[in-house]
Amino acid sequence: MPHFPSKGERPPWRATVLTLFPEMFPGPLGISLSGQALEAGVWSLTTVPIREFGLGRHRAVDDTPAGGGAGMVMRADVLAAAIDHARGAEPDAPLIYLSPRGEPLTQALARELIAGPGVLLLAGRFEGVDERVLAARQIREVSIGDYVLSGGELAAMVLIDACVRLLPGVIGAEGSLSEESFEGGLLEYPQYTKPREWEGRTIPDVLLSGDHKKIAEWRHAEAERVTAERRPDLAARLPRRRPT
Amino acid sequence: MPHFPSKGERPPWRATVLTLFPEMFPGPLGISLSGQALEAGVWSLTTVPIREFGLGRHRAVDDTPAGGGAGMVMRADVLAAAIDHARGAEPDAPLIYLSPRGEPLTQALARELIAGPGVLLLAGRFEGVDERVLAARQIREVSIGDYVLSGGELAAMVLIDACVRLLPGVIGAEGSLSEESFEGGLLEYPQYTKPREWEGRTIPDVLLSGDHKKIAEWRHAEAERVTAERRPDLAARLPRRRPT
Repeated sequence: MPHFPSKGERPPWRATVLTLFPEMFPGPLGISLSGQALEAGVWSLTTVPIREFGLGRHRAVDDTPAGGGAGMVMRADVLAAAIDHARGAEPDAPLIYLSPRGEPLTQALARELIAGPGVLLLAGRFEGVDERVLAARQIREVSIGDYVLSGGELAAMVLIDACVRLLPGVIGAEGSLSEESFEGGLLEYPQYTKPREWEGRTIPDVLLSGDHKKIAEWRHAEAERVTAERRPDLAARLPRRRPT
Repeated sequence: MPHFPSKGERPPWRATVLTLFPEMFPGPLGISLSGQALEAGVWSLTTVPIREFGLGRHRAVDDTPAGGGAGMVMRADVLAAAIDHARGAEPDAPLIYLSPRGEPLTQALARELIAGPGVLLLAGRFEGVDERVLAARQIREVSIGDYVLSGGELAAMVLIDACVRLLPGVIGAEGSLSEESFEGGLLEYPQYTKPREWEGRTIPDVLLSGDHKKIAEWRHAEAERVTAERRPDLAARLPRRRPT
């Protein structure tokens, strides 16, 4: 049985998001799988509104880029104040800035992150953040993919969702985690369900054979084929099998 | 001046999302940059609730995987009915299934997608969808990264946000798009803003020199350095420069 915390106990995995848009949260994370787990106390979500650490009457959080150029850059002093505040409640969680310049988020990184107490996530806006705060607070930069978003909030949600579904008890059957994409370095094999025939298309015979060994072999071969066809970069990283 | 549609005119770029959780939308997309653009009519968002195309009294949308295994698979017949309905309103938009098995979302793909009338996005849940509907409806599979989410909704939001911010008029200054990560195949150079000194850390002198040529050279060199250090895979894809 998975461990669910009893009432009053601190959730075992805690996500804290520093953002200019706390009203975006929990948003999609409050619905369905991650939402049920949030309600059950498997994880917790806290937002730290960066605006509250802004300067002056207008609570300024940004200024123009040194050296010129378009847009605005988030100030190191403001961000450091927000980070240091959040650190008080979460002294041990890794501090991550969501940025297209970061190391790519992978299934392995999600597993690494759920082994710890949670995550402290900085969601940037505008042209990004002053580089000095990244160095001074030793912030790890993580990217969810090779594209640019209008802010780090959606990226933070993606990272959190990828982690939360791996927490014990969130997905019922353990089997459904061990056979999905990226486990074993492969993309997932094709899935089929009823009806047996649809628009003249049938389910592959082997899946209806009841022969579990043959089904497992077919699925592994299909996973290898799909990975080689679609993602030669992933296939190249697989350990080479010895000829039998 | 960017073209904003007048009232009553059809928005130039339209996103339609097929989902079991229409209540997740617009969610984060209704706030800040993408939300303002949505309100201004630069783009539109429609959800198609897959549940309404479900079968029987319980509106079933899924069934057990052929060949056994954990979890549930979304039925081809149900999805095809939802897709064919959505196609009625959007005959020309590319149909995309968000899946970790897809081609990676990139900045180039986002630019390709905004050149068309919009996107028709299928957000899956559970173990995925019956492979036959992907083939029968010629669905393009796109992945936002090498990790698994609890559903396609967050991935659909990420794809939409990456596109919307590139639409004309959404980001004020054109310059702020041309110097960001992935334009020219490089990650972005470090940014700095006021104050000039913070916790003993200073802004690099060149950025305060006022010499625009030197600043541009420094930024390009930094972008190359960051890319080579962090993403040798991206750096390897750059066109080789001839020695000068």
